[in-house]
Amino acid sequence: MENPVVVEVTRGDLVESVHRGGFALVDGAGAVVASAGDIARPVFPRSAIKVFQAIPLIETGAADAFGFGDRELSLACASHSGEEGHVALAAAMLAKGGLDGGALECGCHWPFDLPVALDLARRGGEPTALHNNCSGKHAGFLCTAVHQGEDPGGYVGADHPVQQRAKAAIEDLTGTDLGADVCGTDGCSIPTYAAPLKSFAHGFAKLVTGEGVAAERGAAGRRLIEACMAAPWEMSGTGRACEKLMQAAPGRVFAKTGAEGVFCGALPDFGLGFALKIDDGGTRASEALVAAVIGKALRGDDAALADKFDALASKTLRNWKKITVGAVRAVPR
Amino acid sequence: MENPVVVEVTRGDLVESVHRGGFALVDGAGAVVASAGDIARPVFPRSAIKVFQAIPLIETGAADAFGFGDRELSLACASHSGEEGHVALAAAMLAKGGLDGGALECGCHWPFDLPVALDLARRGGEPTALHNNCSGKHAGFLCTAVHQGEDPGGYVGADHPVQQRAKAAIEDLTGTDLGADVCGTDGCSIPTYAAPLKSFAHGFAKLVTGEGVAAERGAAGRRLIEACMAAPWEMSGTGRACEKLMQAAPGRVFAKTGAEGVFCGALPDFGLGFALKIDDGGTRASEALVAAVIGKALRGDDAALADKFDALASKTLRNWKKITVGAVRAVPR
Repeated sequence: MENPVVVEVTRGDLVESVHRGGFALVDGAGAVVASAGDIARPVFPRSAIKVFQAIPLIETGAADAFGFGDRELSLACASHSGEEGHVALAAAMLAKGGLDGGALECGCHWPFDLPVALDLARRGGEPTALHNNCSGKHAGFLCTAVHQGEDPGGYVGADHPVQQRAKAAIEDLTGTDLGADVCGTDGCSIPTYAAPLKSFAHGFAKLVTGEGVAAERGAAGRRLIEACMAAPWEMSGTGRACEKLMQAAPGRVFAKTGAEGVFCGALPDFGLGFALKIDDGGTRASEALVAAVIGKALRGDDAALADKFDALASKTLRNWKKITVGAVRAVPR
Repeated sequence: MENPVVVEVTRGDLVESVHRGGFALVDGAGAVVASAGDIARPVFPRSAIKVFQAIPLIETGAADAFGFGDRELSLACASHSGEEGHVALAAAMLAKGGLDGGALECGCHWPFDLPVALDLARRGGEPTALHNNCSGKHAGFLCTAVHQGEDPGGYVGADHPVQQRAKAAIEDLTGTDLGADVCGTDGCSIPTYAAPLKSFAHGFAKLVTGEGVAAERGAAGRRLIEACMAAPWEMSGTGRACEKLMQAAPGRVFAKTGAEGVFCGALPDFGLGFALKIDDGGTRASEALVAAVIGKALRGDDAALADKFDALASKTLRNWKKITVGAVRAVPR
């Protein structure tokens, strides 16, 4: 049974390409408020659950020991664009732990955003591990290890206490067992575990409602989510989808992208969490679908805000002469 | 009825993402030798049919008048990478027609290949219209207009003789009527017409067999296809999929990529044409599928060469530390 078409790409009057996928919108008790497609099969969440992975940074006391505020906590949950401010903030976080970029084991890549990459090249620069989109998350991992008196070397390995703590948090929040059979290696070399969209959505709902989660953990999760909502640029970057979504409704929407067409997030006012996956991994489609899912969640309560998100669910496509040629749009349901 | 999954993306032991699509392998008489999915619905071929669009360049005598050889003809069918050699060759073609890059109406973009773009930025350069991946095709259009004594201005418009000739060639080769209802605007601003995969595949088969096509047109098409096979770098670029595919079997395989997950091509020895489309537009998937389709076509006749293409149908995925994390592979059928 295939997932439904959730996003269409048009050219002229025709549909040129289609994206299939699924989403789950879940409340604190785990009830599915809305969904599409298969929300029970295991999905790799990739970067969309960085908040879960950062919970030990708070719970161990490391964040407070190093004086991390909203900007640092947001970067610890970020897939950032590698702009100079992101790089500097990651370096500053590591410095608090007595470390520098040499401690990072995430690997190195050019910034994904072309203008950012071109700017770096023009200045004769080359990316370092600090430019890696995950460097803030890894800075959080390293600072936690330092705080715990652990040897940070090998902190990306599944058996290192850093990854064991992250895994335990994800298992607790999703209510799933994450064994080797659902384990893969992420782009930044840490383990990534697949679980149902429904379970990831429920995990975010637990955090924003406090239901089904220990009080300390719920507070830690809300602190991270609030930091991301307060500092969306740090979590993403200039012109990025996550920044746009959260700036459209400050303090009311948390949305985090993950590679291979994933988004997770929460609507704290409504006590809801959401998770979605585009079958083919297409980010243009996940960005359209997440706006539509948020619009759907808001529709009954705040029509004007829902309209704003529905508008974000459709993006005009222009060619190299800026002529409108088509659109990428979530399929109305 | 949905198209089958044709390409899988794995991480660890799990399938992380999937791509659906279809393909048609057709002989000169129009018989479908092999296929998958819906090969009858209209698909925008995008750049995959640049050979059809370049036929008037030969038929009008313009190519001979300007002394175009394999390199120029290949560039006239190219979606090139905007490397210095591509830019220089496009400029040289235009100069033959007494024009320069200022005549191009394709618009301007940074080279799609990151290393090429970074290199240009490092040198303090900015792209011009000559860097546009379609600049060779447009140089061919402009030189044809000059040869015909036509005002080249507005040559991208549907009503200009240049586009009228291109449309007539596509209609003839595909055996379809290309009306406004199947017309869209391409990235480079010329019209693009949707037709069935089966029809595009048949068009390429006609060219390589001479069946169902006027002798002069068949010869023109074969001349263009042979130029592309002889000069694959000009048609694509360093490390590009089309270059790799054609270099794997020199003179025996013609393969041309199109945006939104399309490939068209031909196997002249076998008198076959092919066309494929990935539903979601994903190029990583079209590149895997085209290798599998070519391997399938070769299997009964040249097992060693078929093995070579089957190997190209599976690509190891490595992360930022070069650790193997998964694969993109055509689903064995």
